[in-house]
Amino acid sequence: MEIKVLTLFPEMFKGPLDVSIIKNAQEKGLLTIEYINIRDFSNSKHKKVDDYPYGGGAGMVMTPQPIFDCYEKTLEKFKDSIKPRTIYCTPKGKVFNQQIALELSKEKHLVFICGHYEGVDQRVIDELVTDEISIGDYVLTGGELPVAVIIDAISRLIPGVLGQDESYQEESFYSGLLEYPHYTRPENFRGLTVPSVLLSGNHKEIANWRNQKAMEVTNKRRPDLIARMKNKKRDENNILL
Amino acid sequence: MEIKVLTLFPEMFKGPLDVSIIKNAQEKGLLTIEYINIRDFSNSKHKKVDDYPYGGGAGMVMTPQPIFDCYEKTLEKFKDSIKPRTIYCTPKGKVFNQQIALELSKEKHLVFICGHYEGVDQRVIDELVTDEISIGDYVLTGGELPVAVIIDAISRLIPGVLGQDESYQEESFYSGLLEYPHYTRPENFRGLTVPSVLLSGNHKEIANWRNQKAMEVTNKRRPDLIARMKNKKRDENNILL
Repeated sequence: MEIKVLTLFPEMFKGPLDVSIIKNAQEKGLLTIEYINIRDFSNSKHKKVDDYPYGGGAGMVMTPQPIFDCYEKTLEKFKDSIKPRTIYCTPKGKVFNQQIALELSKEKHLVFICGHYEGVDQRVIDELVTDEISIGDYVLTGGELPVAVIIDAISRLIPGVLGQDESYQEESFYSGLLEYPHYTRPENFRGLTVPSVLLSGNHKEIANWRNQKAMEVTNKRRPDLIARMKNKKRDENNILL
Repeated sequence: MEIKVLTLFPEMFKGPLDVSIIKNAQEKGLLTIEYINIRDFSNSKHKKVDDYPYGGGAGMVMTPQPIFDCYEKTLEKFKDSIKPRTIYCTPKGKVFNQQIALELSKEKHLVFICGHYEGVDQRVIDELVTDEISIGDYVLTGGELPVAVIIDAISRLIPGVLGQDESYQEESFYSGLLEYPHYTRPENFRGLTVPSVLLSGNHKEIANWRNQKAMEVTNKRRPDLIARMKNKKRDENNILL
């Protein structure tokens, strides 16, 4: 997968996508991520990229010119001439979930446009963006962190990125339920002990216990997931959330 | 506000919380963030921090000893002896939103414990964690990105962090609605024009147009927010989401 990120703050991505699994995915050649600084495309003398909103109001809005020019240059970098899915993160977008992550993980090319300040001029969204996505009902300083979150979520679903022993099929949401609790060494830590069933070696009992715990935590904290799972089951045979 | 982040990957935070508004907040002394490497507290010879899950299954689980010891040393760093809110990010948690961000922005001390791999031993959650929080219904490589997201969301709500002209009271969710579209210079960009009402100088008409657009986008994309807003209005006078 080839990802291009258009941003005013390429340095924000230095840490989060440069370690652990996402680093390995890039080293294995399964994923390339290029950060392109929108400011470099500003035609103005002082490389200005934002201006006051028409109609008044708080904050600054990113102007269309640098983004349009940056976007057009970016498309030239792709070998294929197809218009790639172009994602803009905004609280107004479709709410991101594991199903959308799985869908996006099948794309060959993705472009992300990161808004900052009050966001981008609406003409950018109307003309260039194919998907407005929200990572949740809260407001952030800019689109950089949400874009990092989405890239992290989709990268690990690209075949070959996770090792066989890290399969995502046992994780929260895959089965439609939240995950059961995990325990590891030591058996007794400061008097706190591991549930004995996990030490029993009885695989069937362990599976039953885990399933029961997953049901319990989901029922208690997210009954909406159980309702959604039941509807999905009715609608289709695949029960991915 | 004093924030301590316990993590195996302090380098993941280098970029995202070191620019723009969050950088300014730290420079103004309104916020300090310290990253503490859990691995430094491992008692094992090779600074091991994870082990296989009891009962079998995919992935590795973070062991309790390094986290407990790291946490206890961290508490000693706070001047006050109160147990601080201690947040662990997990898809199993309470779903984060702007209301929780506002609530957390009023705390003096916060501790974040970042899970990685399959997460932490359940005894860490049972004994140390006060709040399990999910930033959304998707699975990420580790707790670092969600913690950065939460810190970003709450930092900008600390009084004095945003300038007067960047007030968050006009943003998505504050009024319970998604935000209206923004436009800035130029008036005509490649034949794409700004809605004329925004150029009219008529403040009342502009306010009406914006309110109507906010209602439209919320109705279309997130009717759940309107339902929630109506319930809130009934329940209380403050209509913060």
